Amino acid sequence: MKIIIIGATGTLGKKVAEAFASKHEIIRVGNTKGDVQVDITNETSIKNMFEHIGAFDALISTSGKGPFAPVNQLTGEVFKSGLLDKLLGQVNLVLIGQHYINKGGSFTLTSGILAESPVAAGSALSTINGGLNSFVLAAAPELGNGIRINAVSPNVVEDSPAYFESFPGEIPVSMEKVVKAYEKSVLGILTGKVIKVY
Amino acid sequence: MKIIIIGATGTLGKKVAEAFASKHEIIRVGNTKGDVQVDITNETSIKNMFEHIGAFDALISTSGKGPFAPVNQLTGEVFKSGLLDKLLGQVNLVLIGQHYINKGGSFTLTSGILAESPVAAGSALSTINGGLNSFVLAAAPELGNGIRINAVSPNVVEDSPAYFESFPGEIPVSMEKVVKAYEKSVLGILTGKVIKVY
Ligand SMILES: NC(=O)c1ccc[n+]([C@@H]2O[C@H](COP(=O)([O-])OP(=O)(O)OC[C@H]3O[C@@H](n4cnc5c(N)ncnc54)[C@H](OP(=O)(O)O)[C@@H]3O)[C@@H](O)[C@H]2O)c1
Ligand SMILES: NC(=O)c1ccc[n+]([C@@H]2O[C@H](COP(=O)([O-])OP(=O)(O)OC[C@H]3O[C@@H](n4cnc5c(N)ncnc54)[C@H](OP(=O)(O)O)[C@@H]3O)[C@@H](O)[C@H]2O)c1
Repeated sequence: MKIIIIGATGTLGKKVAEAFASKHEIIRVGNTKGDVQVDITNETSIKNMFEHIGAFDALISTSGKGPFAPVNQLTGEVFKSGLLDKLLGQVNLVLIGQHYINKGGSFTLTSGILAESPVAAGSALSTINGGLNSFVLAAAPELGNGIRINAVSPNVVEDSPAYFESFPGEIPVSMEKVVKAYEKSVLGILTGKVIKVY
Repeated sequence: MKIIIIGATGTLGKKVAEAFASKHEIIRVGNTKGDVQVDITNETSIKNMFEHIGAFDALISTSGKGPFAPVNQLTGEVFKSGLLDKLLGQVNLVLIGQHYINKGGSFTLTSGILAESPVAAGSALSTINGGLNSFVLAAAPELGNGIRINAVSPNVVEDSPAYFESFPGEIPVSMEKVVKAYEKSVLGILTGKVIKVY
């Protein structure tokens, strides 16, 4: 399979790319690093990436930023920046990518536990993740040609110790489990599902 | 109680305003009609509205637009317009309104059944509604001063026959039930909840 991984140079993406690399052709995409660069907040950049890479069988996104800020300090502008990045950015990978993906291909986006289990200062990311989860649910039945779409929703991962303090009481999940969730989405038959890793 | 209803001139808002009017002071806000006008997609307009109205006890939003379009025809620009209207618009009513609301006050936003039960051409609205549901969940524990926040998530309502065909198999809910959900949010003790009317 020809698999595009957006965010392949990041914490999650690196391990996901490693896992698929032995049996598949991987295009590692980053914002500043990787085989190919893209800015998911820019539709033209996304189109250029697909034109450059051509047809593919699976797209995995482990990218997208959202702000951490307490509700009483959160401004509309800051909130919006997250909506246009992690939420709309990943949605646009699908809206544009659907015109380049092969029959029977799949999209796998990344949301996160905050969709249903909030933490202090996480309301923008909760909103983004909740939106992404509903998006895959709604987009799946509309994609033709056997194309599937799922979201992987991880808890904080063991490889991101900087975030541990922001997730009190959570047991960081192993990267092995997280990688398995992406395998389940790409190699399995699920569609329209949120694959929770927690 | 002094209750601001954003969208009070619309299908849902009209009935909600009627129900609260006998025992409460209602400020009916619309985009073009009503006692006061606001554009929820414009932060300055929202600030001006709160400055004009002053302190209040409850805000109900029955406003916010999102596009209907099949996934294969949906563009990033169209999707974004919905995120910036029904999703960010209602979030901004809270982010800005939190600085004007009285102690013990409440915010009640409107999402909808599409968050978890999609229909054809509804993926943008599903995303928006899912985002709003996660927002109230995450924002609630961070609001101080006993301030509460919930979302009412209705099925298609009996007063909107134009939408019936887009919701095959759904039994339109009575406006009486929908109104009760807003009463439960404003007059009850719930916070961080999605009050489903379906
Ligand atoms: N880490 C966790 O514990 C955790 C838990 C749950 C969910 N998540 C979610 O998982 C995703 C990945 O997290 P992570 O910790 O692996 O992030 P990360 O280490 O910061 O990596 C981010 C990746 O995305 C790329 N990127 C950044 N901005 C981009 C843009 N505008 N366009 C395209 N690519 C861009 C980066 O490329 P360059 O390296 O080239 O800049 C990098 O490959 C995020 O959405 C995050 O919210 C993470
Ligand atoms: N109708 C349903 O069956 C149903 C079901 C589930 C969820 N919902 C949701 O419930 C909400 C209300 O639906 P509805 O059918 O009652 O809508 P509606 O009849 O179209 O009424 C919309 C209301 O919002 C106001 N408005 C429009 N744009 C605005 C803006 N930019 N800023 C501030 N106010 C604005 C309108 O004011 P003016 O009249 O002054 O223009 C009007 O009062 C929507 O979010 C909808 O998605 C509806």
